[in-house]
Amino acid sequence: MTDYRRLRVALLGAGAVGSQVAALLLRHGAELADRAGAELELVGIAVRDLDAPRETDLPRELFTTDAETLIMGADIVIELMGGIEPARTYLLQAINSGADVVTANKALLATHGTEIFEAADQVGAQVYYEAAAAGAIPIIRPLRDSLAGDRVQRIMGIVNGTTNYILDRMDTEGADLADVLAEAQALGYAEADPTADVEGFDAAQKAAILASLAFHTTVPLSTVHREGITGIDASMIESARRAGYVIKLLAVCERLQGESDAAASGEAISVRVYPALISRAHPLASVHGAHNAVFVQAEAAGSLMFYGAGAGGVQTASAVLGDIVSAARRHIAGGVGVGESTRANLPIVPVGRVTTRYQITLEVDDRPGVLATVAGTLSDGRVSIATVEQTIVDDADTADAVGVARLVIGTHKAREQDLSETVDRLAASGVVERVVSVLRVEGD
Amino acid sequence: MTDYRRLRVALLGAGAVGSQVAALLLRHGAELADRAGAELELVGIAVRDLDAPRETDLPRELFTTDAETLIMGADIVIELMGGIEPARTYLLQAINSGADVVTANKALLATHGTEIFEAADQVGAQVYYEAAAAGAIPIIRPLRDSLAGDRVQRIMGIVNGTTNYILDRMDTEGADLADVLAEAQALGYAEADPTADVEGFDAAQKAAILASLAFHTTVPLSTVHREGITGIDASMIESARRAGYVIKLLAVCERLQGESDAAASGEAISVRVYPALISRAHPLASVHGAHNAVFVQAEAAGSLMFYGAGAGGVQTASAVLGDIVSAARRHIAGGVGVGESTRANLPIVPVGRVTTRYQITLEVDDRPGVLATVAGTLSDGRVSIATVEQTIVDDADTADAVGVARLVIGTHKAREQDLSETVDRLAASGVVERVVSVLRVEGD
Repeated sequence: MTDYRRLRVALLGAGAVGSQVAALLLRHGAELADRAGAELELVGIAVRDLDAPRETDLPRELFTTDAETLIMGADIVIELMGGIEPARTYLLQAINSGADVVTANKALLATHGTEIFEAADQVGAQVYYEAAAAGAIPIIRPLRDSLAGDRVQRIMGIVNGTTNYILDRMDTEGADLADVLAEAQALGYAEADPTADVEGFDAAQKAAILASLAFHTTVPLSTVHREGITGIDASMIESARRAGYVIKLLAVCERLQGESDAAASGEAISVRVYPALISRAHPLASVHGAHNAVFVQAEAAGSLMFYGAGAGGVQTASAVLGDIVSAARRHIAGGVGVGESTRANLPIVPVGRVTTRYQITLEVDDRPGVLATVAGTLSDGRVSIATVEQTIVDDADTADAVGVARLVIGTHKAREQDLSETVDRLAASGVVERVVSVLRVEGD
Repeated sequence: MTDYRRLRVALLGAGAVGSQVAALLLRHGAELADRAGAELELVGIAVRDLDAPRETDLPRELFTTDAETLIMGADIVIELMGGIEPARTYLLQAINSGADVVTANKALLATHGTEIFEAADQVGAQVYYEAAAAGAIPIIRPLRDSLAGDRVQRIMGIVNGTTNYILDRMDTEGADLADVLAEAQALGYAEADPTADVEGFDAAQKAAILASLAFHTTVPLSTVHREGITGIDASMIESARRAGYVIKLLAVCERLQGESDAAASGEAISVRVYPALISRAHPLASVHGAHNAVFVQAEAAGSLMFYGAGAGGVQTASAVLGDIVSAARRHIAGGVGVGESTRANLPIVPVGRVTTRYQITLEVDDRPGVLATVAGTLSDGRVSIATVEQTIVDDADTADAVGVARLVIGTHKAREQDLSETVDRLAASGVVERVVSVLRVEGD
């Protein structure tokens, strides 16, 4: 074996991802050394509880509860603890002690990314985080480097495996959300507290990271509009299917023209997470189960798609190990780290100013003039109708009773705020019995 | 505008890709400077003929026929001339004069890659080549960096847009290869001399580059087994369709276990390009038109797919510009370049020792005992039958004439050499009228 320089690698956290990273580092050490041009010596694994059960068989002597001492002696520090603290403190400590750092912590990067990247810039360290968005799918380097000379116009990502699994099962089996969620929890695909997934918090963190990379700008998590999937029921999925759509929880990052006076270019961006209808002919429609995919449209490159496993301990460990090898190569090569590119300073428009197409489903009184009232209300609200379909839900069973009809209205692009005000007016119009659903349509 | 360090960028070649690169560099200069942290000054464009027509409107004063002088004064040299010479000489000259280099030249890298990478290593320069395989699709960085800690088991790539366009049209329209090719030539999708595409030379170059990255080993172009699509006719496409398959020209890069005594691990690799049957349910089956896609299976990451435009001037320019920004960032950061990782030194097995599944289509005499003879010949040749379907082609029209039946045999995995010897014996057996086709089946 070649005599390589030895780099000391410290691991913080030994959960599902961390224990796989440690096991693979130990198992493939010689091979990874050849690739990195450096020996990667795992010097320790910091955990809270030395006696907690672990998924893989790791040498006891590697474990320690003293993270701070471990960090002080390391060339590369891998943070896989999750959560904000003490992960943030440890990462900053590692950076300030001269280490390069690898993290998969999307919550931390989405909330304290600027602080961490600036600390790294100060000392010339590098932060690697390929595992922080879309798990094993290489999407960080493509956005950060490969597309760095292009102008990304739009990203649509299925970036949360749990919700895609749930929506896919609802779509293929006609099942109810609560039943599929319970089953996903039993199988370990969903957490006991599924809030982070089903309410879109996880996807929003990833959207902030992806948008920041794609548009070279800072995207605070608080500016990401977020809606979860708990409002989606079997009947919405079924009526989407009949119209040639499937419902996916999408992270949409979009560059908007003429939406801002703040930037010289007049450009702004919008970052939002919500369940949306997407045509079954779109490549994202065939992303099944817990898989993730990121669809990117760029000015020069055109349409690209990145597809793979979005979660899972060993899959995510692949991305972390790639970062460790990259960090080692950089350490050997010398020079300072390459900081994040966020100089575009693009304003972020509130979701109310974003325009999308919509599908509005209403139950209305089945009597003369109702369609005219609905159409007039939409038109007054600057919402233009593209398609309309009316079906009978309940025939009137006596001569003076009023039946119920269902109206499914597809709109042209409308401004979110106009749309929502118009739907409120429809609901109060006296002819609408019930607003069944209002869903955005993405991916033209 | 921030006051950045100025980097001098020299462009060699102003064809379809080069002229787009120059135009985008000039148009987005300020934005790219913000991303790179350096001003990218296009100092000149070396061409053979100053008066040749160009696709974009570039300032006349940038053009020069004196490539050598241009190279000497540059920090970053972009080679988009294509071909081996003088591209090779210019690239080496650029590296030796201290520049980082960007190239999209797959022919050069597949044949002289080792020489170029070693020259860069000597002086600490870096070679960027995201555009050399699969055009705008970011696949080089994912393989080189993101998956550097994983073990790639297999790559299946649709890496030639022209042949995918032809096969897709044949599949969707039942057209003949010659007709589609002629049309593709008229539309500019295929060259006047289509040999490089239809005979698989272009795909073989890309396969060598991808395999080298994926397996961290040197893959000489001469070791890549190559077959083109000229033997594919409409009837093969049609019978593939009936069996639930589509025919794609695939670049297959595979890690093989227990196939070599040379490597300590017993591992070896196989790199091959040929038209193969692939299930219509496989993600690669839905790659239409001139699009490319690379399907990667890795030990930890599982299955990944990268999809996008595989060619086109402006699309490929996107990949080149990403490399220019990366080169500039590295220049500013300092340190030496990160060399290629080829220390695995894996032996490459000849195609005769590779095992795949096959579909064999035969026309045989329709008389008793023929199926037994065919089955016996296959079994004697160590080819195991998985499925068989016999249909009547020609009924015997007189009592003593012999009819013709068509046998479509799906095999289990068989060694290529066994299979080809067995097919020869079948052809000579006296009961086989015609070997209609022998196609591999990929993507289980």
